[in-house]
Amino acid sequence: MVAKQLSIFLENKSGRLTEVTEVLAKENINLSALCIAENADFGILRGIVSDPDRAYKALKENHFAVNVTDVVGISCPNVAGALAKVLRYLSDEGVFIEYMYSFANNQTANVVIRPNDMENCIRVLTEKKVDLLAASDLYKL
Amino acid sequence: MVAKQLSIFLENKSGRLTEVTEVLAKENINLSALCIAENADFGILRGIVSDPDRAYKALKENHFAVNVTDVVGISCPNVAGALAKVLRYLSDEGVFIEYMYSFANNQTANVVIRPNDMENCIRVLTEKKVDLLAASDLYKL
Amino acid sequence: MVAKQLSIFLENKSGRLTEVTEVLAKENINLSALCIAENADFGILRGIVSDPDRAYKALKENHFAVNVTDVVGISCPNVAGALAKVLRYLSDEGVFIEYMYSFANNQTANVVIRPNDMENCIRVLTEKKVDLLAASDLYKL
Amino acid sequence: MVAKQLSIFLENKSGRLTEVTEVLAKENINLSALCIAENADFGILRGIVSDPDRAYKALKENHFAVNVTDVVGISCPNVAGALAKVLRYLSDEGVFIEYMYSFANNQTANVVIRPNDMENCIRVLTEKKVDLLAASDLYKL
Repeated sequence: MVAKQLSIFLENKSGRLTEVTEVLAKENINLSALCIAENADFGILRGIVSDPDRAYKALKENHFAVNVTDVVGISCPNVAGALAKVLRYLSDEGVFIEYMYSFANNQTANVVIRPNDMENCIRVLTEKKVDLLAASDLYKL
Repeated sequence: MVAKQLSIFLENKSGRLTEVTEVLAKENINLSALCIAENADFGILRGIVSDPDRAYKALKENHFAVNVTDVVGISCPNVAGALAKVLRYLSDEGVFIEYMYSFANNQTANVVIRPNDMENCIRVLTEKKVDLLAASDLYKL
Repeated sequence: MVAKQLSIFLENKSGRLTEVTEVLAKENINLSALCIAENADFGILRGIVSDPDRAYKALKENHFAVNVTDVVGISCPNVAGALAKVLRYLSDEGVFIEYMYSFANNQTANVVIRPNDMENCIRVLTEKKVDLLAASDLYKL
Repeated sequence: MVAKQLSIFLENKSGRLTEVTEVLAKENINLSALCIAENADFGILRGIVSDPDRAYKALKENHFAVNVTDVVGISCPNVAGALAKVLRYLSDEGVFIEYMYSFANNQTANVVIRPNDMENCIRVLTEKKVDLLAASDLYKL
């Protein structure tokens, strides 16, 4: 349920991102989901990868500043209103979303969530029978 | 090729995101891809929706601060190294990624890119025969 | 001790900041401290102003998305190590800094802090006899 | 005129900032101005220090991810409208502010600016006789 997200510091916008993906490619590690949080000078790549432990090691060896953050993955029906319903469950129980990223795909939308309170978030999602993604499934989308 | 991304200001982390999705749900507008760029107090929801013009109007009417940004969508094979190859094409031609978000799904990964230079980005992607997503396809993932 | 910081959403980088300062100038409101948290497309202006309530009203009337956040101002000796000492006091008591901004000036440095836990932060700073700035002093630097 | 700003990646919010200031304190390096650009998990400390080259070296030796960015420092009268006037000069000539931070102090306000186009920014500020701060003055506020 709780999955490991890597956060990798991108010191510039002119090639550092390419280098991250090349380090992972060389290790035959796939990126199953990612988003970038950026400012004017830098970026943070948030990524779900096929093998987080090996990816962490390879990036560290290549002198990237990298961290691990707990996130939770869910699957929603890909229809208008399905995500709103899940977010309403969480809001009503005082769970806030620090950030999330999501892509629809045919029948379903996969969503990666970083809540303010993971324990409470998991409890609400479970009680409401939201479809939680196993970490292993998220790593291998 | 060039698609419209909505960027919506979330004045707090405790329910504003839920309200955005509820406004869209009420209009029967689907979110096909999204990510949040946040700081300690606020968030910016970046979203690809099924009907950007109608979504913009509905959000404005509900007093959200909302903007439109041009992005480009591509589709990659969902294998280690496929994204690295595309990013290398762009880096080598001086195209930088301001931000991007992506999800894999079975055989392919869909990627939304905001480049520093859209025209040059489209040129490179076209020359290198990268699979560009029509805006209409991105809106209806 | 606890002061009001305004956070103003800047929908673009090409003039919106100028407009904010012009709205404040017209109202004869001074900006005593500010910093910008930005991403590729937008900015958030965080500002301490001479009259927060009137500034809030004027900005709202001019259709800016604006919010109020509690911050605390302190004054440190302007010597190497003075800020480190204050931050160590806070770290040791589990108070984290969400963000801060600071400028030195001759004998002292003024610092605006947004802690994760305001009550605890004020308690630690008071116990350690750190020089707290009255909100009224911060507004009129 | 053009000064060196250090940008230091803070991998967490619970002590990394304290460590940065302690590394600088040990080297007897002063922070004359700083602000933090943060997201939910991380921070970037942007700082003007008394000795940028030595600070860079010390931080690198202590395994911080650190970068150097060009900024420009100006001094404004500390009265309502003074900053608006400078920003209007820049907007009118197509110079945008990526980010800035500023503190007032008695008669003047010191401002650190990261423009989108440094050359053009310096030209406009010089033509309009805005009071530019020498880098050496900014380092020793």
